[in-house]
Amino acid sequence: MNPKIIALLTDFGIDDPYVGIMKGVISRIAPTVELIDLTHLVPPADIQRGAFLLWQASLDFPLGTIFLAVVDPGVGTSRKAIYFQCGDKIFIGPDNGLFSYLTYKEEPSIWELTNPELRLGKSSSTFHGRDIFAPAAAYAALGTAGAEFGQQLAGITQLPVPTLHLDKRKAVGEIISSDRFGNLFTSLGQFSYQGDYLTCSSWVDSQAVQLNRQADFMIEINQERFSLRETFNSIPPGDIAGLVGSTGLLEISTNQGSARDILNVDRGTPVILGWQEE
Amino acid sequence: MNPKIIALLTDFGIDDPYVGIMKGVISRIAPTVELIDLTHLVPPADIQRGAFLLWQASLDFPLGTIFLAVVDPGVGTSRKAIYFQCGDKIFIGPDNGLFSYLTYKEEPSIWELTNPELRLGKSSSTFHGRDIFAPAAAYAALGTAGAEFGQQLAGITQLPVPTLHLDKRKAVGEIISSDRFGNLFTSLGQFSYQGDYLTCSSWVDSQAVQLNRQADFMIEINQERFSLRETFNSIPPGDIAGLVGSTGLLEISTNQGSARDILNVDRGTPVILGWQEE
Amino acid sequence: MNPKIIALLTDFGIDDPYVGIMKGVISRIAPTVELIDLTHLVPPADIQRGAFLLWQASLDFPLGTIFLAVVDPGVGTSRKAIYFQCGDKIFIGPDNGLFSYLTYKEEPSIWELTNPELRLGKSSSTFHGRDIFAPAAAYAALGTAGAEFGQQLAGITQLPVPTLHLDKRKAVGEIISSDRFGNLFTSLGQFSYQGDYLTCSSWVDSQAVQLNRQADFMIEINQERFSLRETFNSIPPGDIAGLVGSTGLLEISTNQGSARDILNVDRGTPVILGWQEE
Repeated sequence: MNPKIIALLTDFGIDDPYVGIMKGVISRIAPTVELIDLTHLVPPADIQRGAFLLWQASLDFPLGTIFLAVVDPGVGTSRKAIYFQCGDKIFIGPDNGLFSYLTYKEEPSIWELTNPELRLGKSSSTFHGRDIFAPAAAYAALGTAGAEFGQQLAGITQLPVPTLHLDKRKAVGEIISSDRFGNLFTSLGQFSYQGDYLTCSSWVDSQAVQLNRQADFMIEINQERFSLRETFNSIPPGDIAGLVGSTGLLEISTNQGSARDILNVDRGTPVILGWQEE
Repeated sequence: MNPKIIALLTDFGIDDPYVGIMKGVISRIAPTVELIDLTHLVPPADIQRGAFLLWQASLDFPLGTIFLAVVDPGVGTSRKAIYFQCGDKIFIGPDNGLFSYLTYKEEPSIWELTNPELRLGKSSSTFHGRDIFAPAAAYAALGTAGAEFGQQLAGITQLPVPTLHLDKRKAVGEIISSDRFGNLFTSLGQFSYQGDYLTCSSWVDSQAVQLNRQADFMIEINQERFSLRETFNSIPPGDIAGLVGSTGLLEISTNQGSARDILNVDRGTPVILGWQEE
Repeated sequence: MNPKIIALLTDFGIDDPYVGIMKGVISRIAPTVELIDLTHLVPPADIQRGAFLLWQASLDFPLGTIFLAVVDPGVGTSRKAIYFQCGDKIFIGPDNGLFSYLTYKEEPSIWELTNPELRLGKSSSTFHGRDIFAPAAAYAALGTAGAEFGQQLAGITQLPVPTLHLDKRKAVGEIISSDRFGNLFTSLGQFSYQGDYLTCSSWVDSQAVQLNRQADFMIEINQERFSLRETFNSIPPGDIAGLVGSTGLLEISTNQGSARDILNVDRGTPVILGWQEE
């Protein structure tokens, strides 16, 4: 049987041994699990970025993967610790919005992590990653079901849904994240090219639109206009353009430079994709 | 049987492939070992920080874990390479003080790493992590006993013991480390809350004190005074306070900010925890 | 049987989950493979640094290791995706010069990665690490031979060969890389001390020279002169000197400081090692 995967995402950074300690705890409970780091450089307490990266990463992991996500500014307060199952993937972490982006297309099942037998013996008020979440992920990897952790919950804390409106002439969204290369992720998507068409099946609701791939596309950010391209390298050097990125969302990029630095935009900046059939 | 864990801590950084190379060497000798990174961002040659993080991490790892620790400014000199066993954990690295904080409660057994058959065939004067320490950790994971590596040693190089004095009215210590979030670790501890009591069983010697949890606690750093709290979130926004951290040491923290930046203090700054029974 | 190792080197950074996503894809195809990170902090699009680090790391990994290397500014263009076998090691990545330094001593066998059945089902124009290279590395770990991926290629894209001229009185080379500690790697080497001799067997061609270890060695960079030492700690504090590093190349170092910062030199700066028999 294949080893279970636990994929880890935190804001713990990599200067301190906090992530290693969580892995040590997991290995005491579930020694043969495979541990894969997503990132530990979510900016401290940036739940929205954590939520986006978790959604982004979850797209490509095997069924049965357990995601251990700890961006937890409310550690030690009454915010709940949860086991969150969505599709065939399991997410363990604090109920503070981290799992928001996973719920648009799937109905999750949620349990609270309260069973003291599935926690570390000792317990701190400052490091639930070690004391509650790592043990829960390890027990989940061993096959412990959600219902064994505690009572079922009806819903979770939700971040605001990213803007995504589709109409006949345009899609209206916003910047929601960026990456090391300065590519800007927008909420516009998920797009896919299929033959002569570019299809957008909204990732946040049931909207959909099918467009002629040859249409005259125009992207607008802060009154500036950019074209839509199909590869990085078809962007003229120094220019900014949009393209459908690896998650299916519209990204704003430049050819070997940082679109984020050039445009100097932030999360929440509106982005419009307009089109005109030729 | 569970795979052996080798936990790695170095000052090699993550821009270069040095850590990966050590892992490649380990995998040649002990292919089924599990490798867990603690951190590789110990500041270059900062033995004291390495020693603290190693102690911190060692608290939560399974019995039998092998810690491979390389912060080694004296590589190529006469400083010894050692196999250091303490409790049920094994530590491999240079004898330069890195293992100081592990010896307060346990009597270690120590052997020198001199057996040429348990080193890499080739050898450099600059990368003993690859040539001596990684192979030693791998052989230790395969079950090679300390005595097979070389002769037993009576003691190790020790860093100064962190200040920790307990008396009837106060505990006197110092700042010894800090983390990504700007939490300051003090030498005061290890504390634990048990029912109505806060107990300090010194981590550096046999001192102990049991205090009324409801006592009037006061922390003093550079003539400024702070309160003792039980969770991050009971600290009023913007305030500094002390709390018992996940290692049992007293930490100085603020609610979603950096106590290190606000107080602008360094390792060695004195910290006093005073109390008055109500 | 020992698990296959996939060693990963990219310019993806560690703020985003791109590396984790590649690992998730690998685990879907080859669940029992062992994944070892070399570095993901190659500066974006710096193929030359990627090539050097890949050569450096490849020296110490087990036979049969698969190196998955993605520094790929030309993703989505006509640059080829390749399976590159050299000695008993396999390299997977873009054909853009990344594998240049591996070819000096060994004749590689090269195949193009075109077989659609050995790619991820979906495909993007921006993330071939996920869609093409990670699956190829995973299939290679399962034993898929080069010829199954696509047609054999006669050669690869090559970076300029680093300067290394040997004559009777001197070796002439250049700075080619540096590390976290500010050590400067030169193209002079590979050297090894054997008894009374210091031998240079060129790593880029068939030149060789054997020198008296006691000769009067002199290193020259930008008209400044430095001595050759055998360990870091024989360098007087504050001085710069050369020494034979862990790869066998001549490195320029200082005793607990950064030679790169002190000398303020860059890749391409000429370095001369001269000698005079006593």
